[in-house]
Amino acid sequence: MPSISKRGENVPMSPFRKLIPFADKAKQSGKHVYHLNIGQPDIETPAYALQQVRATNMKVLEYSPAEGLASYRKKLTHYYRKFHIEVNAEEVIVTTGASEAIQFAFLACLDQQDEVIVPEPFYANYNGFAQIADVRIRPVTCSIDDGFKLPDTAAFEQAITTDTKGIFITNPNNPTGCFYSRESLESLAELCRKYSLFLFVDEVYREFCYDGKEFFSALNLRGVEEHVIVLDSISKRYSACGARVGAIVTRNKAVLAAVTRYAKLRLSPPGLGQILAEATLDVEETYMQEVKAEYARRRDVVFRRLSNMRGVVSYRPGGAFYCFAKFPIDSAERFCLWMLEDFDLNGATVMLSPGEGFYATPGLGVDEVRIAYVLNTDALEAAMDCLDAGLQAYPGRRSEERISSVKAAAQ
Amino acid sequence: MPSISKRGENVPMSPFRKLIPFADKAKQSGKHVYHLNIGQPDIETPAYALQQVRATNMKVLEYSPAEGLASYRKKLTHYYRKFHIEVNAEEVIVTTGASEAIQFAFLACLDQQDEVIVPEPFYANYNGFAQIADVRIRPVTCSIDDGFKLPDTAAFEQAITTDTKGIFITNPNNPTGCFYSRESLESLAELCRKYSLFLFVDEVYREFCYDGKEFFSALNLRGVEEHVIVLDSISKRYSACGARVGAIVTRNKAVLAAVTRYAKLRLSPPGLGQILAEATLDVEETYMQEVKAEYARRRDVVFRRLSNMRGVVSYRPGGAFYCFAKFPIDSAERFCLWMLEDFDLNGATVMLSPGEGFYATPGLGVDEVRIAYVLNTDALEAAMDCLDAGLQAYPGRRSEERISSVKAAAQ
Repeated sequence: MPSISKRGENVPMSPFRKLIPFADKAKQSGKHVYHLNIGQPDIETPAYALQQVRATNMKVLEYSPAEGLASYRKKLTHYYRKFHIEVNAEEVIVTTGASEAIQFAFLACLDQQDEVIVPEPFYANYNGFAQIADVRIRPVTCSIDDGFKLPDTAAFEQAITTDTKGIFITNPNNPTGCFYSRESLESLAELCRKYSLFLFVDEVYREFCYDGKEFFSALNLRGVEEHVIVLDSISKRYSACGARVGAIVTRNKAVLAAVTRYAKLRLSPPGLGQILAEATLDVEETYMQEVKAEYARRRDVVFRRLSNMRGVVSYRPGGAFYCFAKFPIDSAERFCLWMLEDFDLNGATVMLSPGEGFYATPGLGVDEVRIAYVLNTDALEAAMDCLDAGLQAYPGRRSEERISSVKAAAQ
Repeated sequence: MPSISKRGENVPMSPFRKLIPFADKAKQSGKHVYHLNIGQPDIETPAYALQQVRATNMKVLEYSPAEGLASYRKKLTHYYRKFHIEVNAEEVIVTTGASEAIQFAFLACLDQQDEVIVPEPFYANYNGFAQIADVRIRPVTCSIDDGFKLPDTAAFEQAITTDTKGIFITNPNNPTGCFYSRESLESLAELCRKYSLFLFVDEVYREFCYDGKEFFSALNLRGVEEHVIVLDSISKRYSACGARVGAIVTRNKAVLAAVTRYAKLRLSPPGLGQILAEATLDVEETYMQEVKAEYARRRDVVFRRLSNMRGVVSYRPGGAFYCFAKFPIDSAERFCLWMLEDFDLNGATVMLSPGEGFYATPGLGVDEVRIAYVLNTDALEAAMDCLDAGLQAYPGRRSEERISSVKAAAQ
């Protein structure tokens, strides 16, 4: 019997995946589990867009063009104008979710063993996409103590080797919720210009920036027009994760040509999903305003509750729908498992993602978690009640002196 | 400015891709182009299945499970019983078209630089998927003179090296339309057992076997249950290419686990497409009978017409909706281009795929073409009129003596 590949054995997985069987078991035993571990929003997909799918009258569900439906690509360029981005339809290639956009970007821009610098913690699936493309991720470390803002230029420069071909960021960030300002992006652009690097920016959360912060797209950086590759998706924007429709946007003609070649290989992005995606662009702006206001309320709940938990370090995230928190515990993985297996508050518990899997540097994030605020505020309050009580009761909680000394050292 | 990757520059493309701009130009100049170059059928998608998409009443288009909707996986196992295949739902993983199924199979089973043996001519996009996975395709050559039947065991054995990890076939075949019998498959199975190789079989055309030939799935081979990986798709079966729903089916638990890991990375196959796919399984069997009868009629038209063209070598394909033909010409690529640029019959011409791109061995297939019979019989007759007249008028046609000597040599 033939053996599977070494890479097939070692696909890097999302940090919460191994906890899923324990969550299932908890639910089977009658416990309610608040899922704050995954970015699957409970927000409704725009009814108008779903209605447009129901209104289709095609006879043959054909391949769309490999680059995506011409009408959708054109309409996306109008959407981008909302963020003052001027691109033409040829600069937008429709993909099967942002997942495929990232894969195409890696394949088109990087050869085997090339390196890409990624601030950590980062979206853990980047590891898997890097494995498929056989490229290496070199992390630069961010810290919870300043809300995970980007490290300074020196830290990036230190990470650059002769194999470095690009810098990859997510703005606003998953898993930290950190919002990167125009100035931070300009510093990265300067580096990319100086060292001739691609700047990959995953902007799938661009709609969700809070406190009046204005999103600044990497496509508006000057002097690096050919360096910037933006990865996009409708999954989070319109709560349409199952549509599997994303995009890669760049002004670099050689990259567009290479991405088009990879797109042609897999023939076509999903046809029905593109009908939905095109329809989302006619959804009234009030939809997005309401969704954004809802996420802002949820963020406030989570931040307020975390701030009031003794020994917990967190910060007010500026965007997306995630935050990180540092807990006064021995191990987030053990804690998350314990919450599912051994804890409940009035029959309920909460599932979080252990932080370690979001770091590439071994040993980091062991007492941190990612919290996705994808439930309504009532459910979030209840989930925070569970978390608060769980942290009090957890046998691996660090002693009060230890917490104080950690807090002092962090100041 | 950073340069793109070497692999991005060199993505192997489908043989007809470079002719597309010329086809577009021909159409712009008012010529009608009969497209026999691509496997996009004109057959209608089952109306019932499209209706089920229109009848959905979901509020949130969520991620489906990474392995596909549980209900769809289960239902697919019933579909496979039609071909006497007994698998359970855990042995079926839903993919984004067969394209993704092939990629997952390569990644899960092969490491970089591993080899897979593929009879040529083969579906040209396998080259691209091999490039992404960084694996090598080693061809064994089939011949038009016997209708491209599989080479004998010795030819396969000769191609096996220490790097060989599998044999990959398409049954019935794209691009040749060749039907592989149970006996041919058993010979391959014996080889795979002997040399501990995977047997990858792309069965997306299994519904389309003609002349009473009964399809035999590789999943029914005995003694190689853990070697066999079947790639599947609803694209051709139900004329639903745009749904982007395929599957990988295997009893090898380690492969299933690895494929699941890759599936989780990209989160989910298309949600709306899966609704359509699940509904196809409730479509009345008369739909498939009619579609199959229609393809059989088309095959008969194409074969009859080719048989009556002087100097043309072809054969009666046993399945799928393709055939190959050898023309009395200097170069199929030049001929196909000339047909688009310089020829018309009453304002119409035909687009075919040059054969060379379906071979991995340089120099093979230069005077061969692939013909996809994806148009109705009237259109096919008209297309064959164009082809016949084109072959007569083509300046690069070989002299009659040359044709006779080639024919004699082939006998």
